[in-house]
Amino acid sequence: MIGLQDVRDAGAALAGQIVRTPTAPAPFLSEHLGCRLFLKLENLQCTGSFKERGALNRLRRLDDAERVRGVVAASAGNHAQGVAWHAQRLGIPATIVMPRHTPFTKVERTESYGATVVLHGDHLTAAEQHATALANERGLIVIHPYDDAHIIAGQGTIALELLEDVADLDDIVVPIGGGGLISGIAVAAKALRPEIRVIGVEADLYPSMSDALRGISREYAGTTIAEGIAVKRPGVLTRELVRALVDDIVLVDEATLERAVHLLLTGQKLLGEGAGAAGLAALLSAGERFAGRRVATVICGGNIDARVLASVMMRGLVREGHLVRLMIGIDDSPGMLARVAGVIAKGGGNIVEVYHHRLWYSVSPKRAELELVVETRDRLHAQAIRQGLAGEGFTVTTV
Amino acid sequence: MIGLQDVRDAGAALAGQIVRTPTAPAPFLSEHLGCRLFLKLENLQCTGSFKERGALNRLRRLDDAERVRGVVAASAGNHAQGVAWHAQRLGIPATIVMPRHTPFTKVERTESYGATVVLHGDHLTAAEQHATALANERGLIVIHPYDDAHIIAGQGTIALELLEDVADLDDIVVPIGGGGLISGIAVAAKALRPEIRVIGVEADLYPSMSDALRGISREYAGTTIAEGIAVKRPGVLTRELVRALVDDIVLVDEATLERAVHLLLTGQKLLGEGAGAAGLAALLSAGERFAGRRVATVICGGNIDARVLASVMMRGLVREGHLVRLMIGIDDSPGMLARVAGVIAKGGGNIVEVYHHRLWYSVSPKRAELELVVETRDRLHAQAIRQGLAGEGFTVTTV
Repeated sequence: MIGLQDVRDAGAALAGQIVRTPTAPAPFLSEHLGCRLFLKLENLQCTGSFKERGALNRLRRLDDAERVRGVVAASAGNHAQGVAWHAQRLGIPATIVMPRHTPFTKVERTESYGATVVLHGDHLTAAEQHATALANERGLIVIHPYDDAHIIAGQGTIALELLEDVADLDDIVVPIGGGGLISGIAVAAKALRPEIRVIGVEADLYPSMSDALRGISREYAGTTIAEGIAVKRPGVLTRELVRALVDDIVLVDEATLERAVHLLLTGQKLLGEGAGAAGLAALLSAGERFAGRRVATVICGGNIDARVLASVMMRGLVREGHLVRLMIGIDDSPGMLARVAGVIAKGGGNIVEVYHHRLWYSVSPKRAELELVVETRDRLHAQAIRQGLAGEGFTVTTV
Repeated sequence: MIGLQDVRDAGAALAGQIVRTPTAPAPFLSEHLGCRLFLKLENLQCTGSFKERGALNRLRRLDDAERVRGVVAASAGNHAQGVAWHAQRLGIPATIVMPRHTPFTKVERTESYGATVVLHGDHLTAAEQHATALANERGLIVIHPYDDAHIIAGQGTIALELLEDVADLDDIVVPIGGGGLISGIAVAAKALRPEIRVIGVEADLYPSMSDALRGISREYAGTTIAEGIAVKRPGVLTRELVRALVDDIVLVDEATLERAVHLLLTGQKLLGEGAGAAGLAALLSAGERFAGRRVATVICGGNIDARVLASVMMRGLVREGHLVRLMIGIDDSPGMLARVAGVIAKGGGNIVEVYHHRLWYSVSPKRAELELVVETRDRLHAQAIRQGLAGEGFTVTTV
């Protein structure tokens, strides 16, 4: 089994080779959540996630012959980049197998770290099988993303740094994918501070670790914003460490994950991917369990697709009532837009999009629907603008 | 004049009252820029900017009678929030005068910190005059955003922390608005480490400090993404400190400021507003002056409008060749979209938006223009897709 000394050895091996990331107090989020929150900023690692720690610790254990032959890993995400970057730094050839439809930016970023990317299969399982085949064929060493003692010990170094920075933590909240991150953290944290609670977080679409601990085996599906922790089969090693050391697992839904990404960015100015903000999502959905406590969570990664992020930002504005969409019935004649726009301007709203609809909707062919997206202070302000329009005789529907 | 001891006194006064922000190594950006870069994360302050330091240091100097009467400040941005938040914490009534068209989210955030917001005038100058009038009328103390010794000393505490974290810095690159931040930093940094270079950054649309040092007085105009440093008249106190202590000022253009915000977010997972990323913009545009050196810059604020940020993200995709817009001439008949989409799918492009144009363009009424937004790996990939379409007989224009 893995113990504190393994994590300490990993810490010595990683020193100066990865970013010793800061633990930032989060006063804004602490106010919001009612606990004393600290964020371990693993998104600041060179490749944007904690995965470098385990990957480098594993790579450093290769013997000379293995280093020459090289390594292979299957991953569409952060593990790929962590392995590629540190293999390049150590002069070890790396092959990364990714599913065929991996987003371009992830392929490009991984290649930019000098790895050979092989696109294979429709899903990660097929990519994994292909990686194993390549390993057998070419004598490459497979670098597993989580189910490996050196990987787990590497990730555990996060707990050493966390407790060095904030000695009297009550809780550490850790996202769970395959379980490597939480296993390593739990090993070190429980050894150094037995009274600490280690709480895991899974997306409720992919609760594979929670299920595994209860002996349930089933299929998972669905699109999650936290694809970094959408793991269908947790590790065997990690499962036993989680069973032994982790106090509880919180499941979070998609809406809360999205809100967490948005709040982390707007409230604390930090970019987390869905999995990276999962700890914050757990605090949002189970806040009462952390009230008044000194809590740390690991912002474990920040690699989010730019289009997804732009969409999260805009949806956040809608959710908070800062953007509303109004459908307004008008006569199809000159001057109508000017009248409507005048009423909205008087009410202090800012029109940001305009569409005219004439072909659809059950309206007379002499009338039209005007669709407006309006920026407002909040829901009350939007309501006042709707009333202003109604007062001028317009029929308004909110979409 | 202000000296190191004033900054040290401010440091003692602020301890435990603001976030002792981390200095993060930035390995990804260091690789990109060819220097050894450290980022002082003032965007992690509770209100998202360094302004709290000066504001709190000033507020703590009020006597009992002044505290009861309260304070007033004119600001549409970070100073407003910094004053409001710490005035609330200290139980001091705060009035903030903002120009009438200040974005809703800034008004809302400032009010959420308990301040009374007064909207007045079309520009900051009018708001400042109104703040002075309110101060005279009601006996309020004006908290100036930069031209005040206590404000400058408060901002200077950043340099104490920076040099505590990285003792052997060669350069500190600091955005300049009114000059409070760079003045305080220069006072402390030059006293502690005389050989350090302190380099300022201004938006090239608002080079008011550079001009003032050369005795030039003129008008500035134009829209900048770095509205936090778009100051028309630098301070009188700060001007003399900058003249005495700052080694040089770099001007950065709008395109570089936008690129810096984008790169900070995608490369280093940190949200900076335009002014907050201005130091990085200086490194992007004058990189040769920092090659191989140990450089720190202050990510001085992270309060960027959500719609602006979403737009920066999408424009970044376009700039990097990950999104292209194609205009394709087609016969206006069934099956054409399927053919075009098939060619693009075969080429590995991902269609994200589709528009049909029939009314405009100088085409025959029997033909139409198909406008597609396509996600691609890079410019070469986009080129290959265009060639694929041309090979099938389509006329393609890139927009």
